[in-house]
Amino acid sequence: MKPPGYGHFITLEGGEGVGKSTNLALVVQLLANAGLEVECTREPGGTPLAERIRELLVTPDHETLPPIAELLLVFAARAVHLEGRIRPALAAGRWVLCDRFTDASYAYQGAARGLGPARVAWLEQEVQGGLRPDLTLLLDADPAVGLDRATARGVADRFEAERLEFFRRVRAGYLERAAAEPERFRVIDASRPLAEVQADISIHIKAFLQLHGKA
Amino acid sequence: MKPPGYGHFITLEGGEGVGKSTNLALVVQLLANAGLEVECTREPGGTPLAERIRELLVTPDHETLPPIAELLLVFAARAVHLEGRIRPALAAGRWVLCDRFTDASYAYQGAARGLGPARVAWLEQEVQGGLRPDLTLLLDADPAVGLDRATARGVADRFEAERLEFFRRVRAGYLERAAAEPERFRVIDASRPLAEVQADISIHIKAFLQLHGKA
Repeated sequence: MKPPGYGHFITLEGGEGVGKSTNLALVVQLLANAGLEVECTREPGGTPLAERIRELLVTPDHETLPPIAELLLVFAARAVHLEGRIRPALAAGRWVLCDRFTDASYAYQGAARGLGPARVAWLEQEVQGGLRPDLTLLLDADPAVGLDRATARGVADRFEAERLEFFRRVRAGYLERAAAEPERFRVIDASRPLAEVQADISIHIKAFLQLHGKA
Repeated sequence: MKPPGYGHFITLEGGEGVGKSTNLALVVQLLANAGLEVECTREPGGTPLAERIRELLVTPDHETLPPIAELLLVFAARAVHLEGRIRPALAAGRWVLCDRFTDASYAYQGAARGLGPARVAWLEQEVQGGLRPDLTLLLDADPAVGLDRATARGVADRFEAERLEFFRRVRAGYLERAAAEPERFRVIDASRPLAEVQADISIHIKAFLQLHGKA
């Protein structure tokens, strides 16, 4: 249980090109409309040091990064982010909204890169202790749709340059997480028109706010 | 067992100011004198990407680095170093000499920062599989002696700015490792005059070379 006055922790997850950025802005707006102080952040990153770690992960011109090194860098950045930003914000009563969190590690490094869930779970426990998101919105779409959108934006970082098969495994990893923790997850079909996706997001956020006496 | 033609892996360990750099040069010379191709490297670091990770560890001007983040960064750098440099060198028949390796993680992060040996051992297994040094020279001295030397060199990076008590724990961590693996370790009293220290190192290296038919 959280101490009284503690903020809530919401994460937004999904593969490439599912509209995460656009919908992140919507969630920020919905929370602000409810009069909440919102800390909007992202992973990997979220603090200057964690962003420096992110650079090592996304810069495509460096030498090969073994999957286990990628996983360890992601969790090192997470430990920095938690201590420097997320925990202090929650303790100060702010609501934290994070663009990707540990479910992404299960999906990308655990499922897609083949490291499996046990390694991720060990690191999750070591780095987070008992801290888990209170609500996770998963924007789900066939990766063929998402990749078209990412390519149209001209984005081609190290992750986005990976092949379709990789993103199919990412999607499967996310859906497995959602199936295992249905209480926390809201799976949103992101292949539909934006207005429909956003209507769903509004319903889920409003219901969550109501549950916590904020609407 | 190593495949035939595989190189050997020697590590040099010790706290601050025990004369690691000077003695590293001696070991390189002894191995070269025996006609061996030597790959001399260091941790954290050893490849451009691993050195970028090292920068995050030693730059003192950044935000607080939680101990678990430090440990994960060290092992991320190690995974990169192993894949990019150490394993290829050994496979090509070269002898690898490394200035600090995983025993330093047990001593610094495990013992001195209080993370304990179990976390280090988990990461060691994940990152290294069965790979362990064949020989480890531990330069051992009371940290009060070592710190004086480091201060005299004007060195004051993040680790070296730590207090004496920290280095007492580092030393204890190293000695515990040496006691647990006496076959692999040679503990050298580094508080003596350099000539005596180097005489010991020569004896140990020559004995190891003889054991492997190289002298």
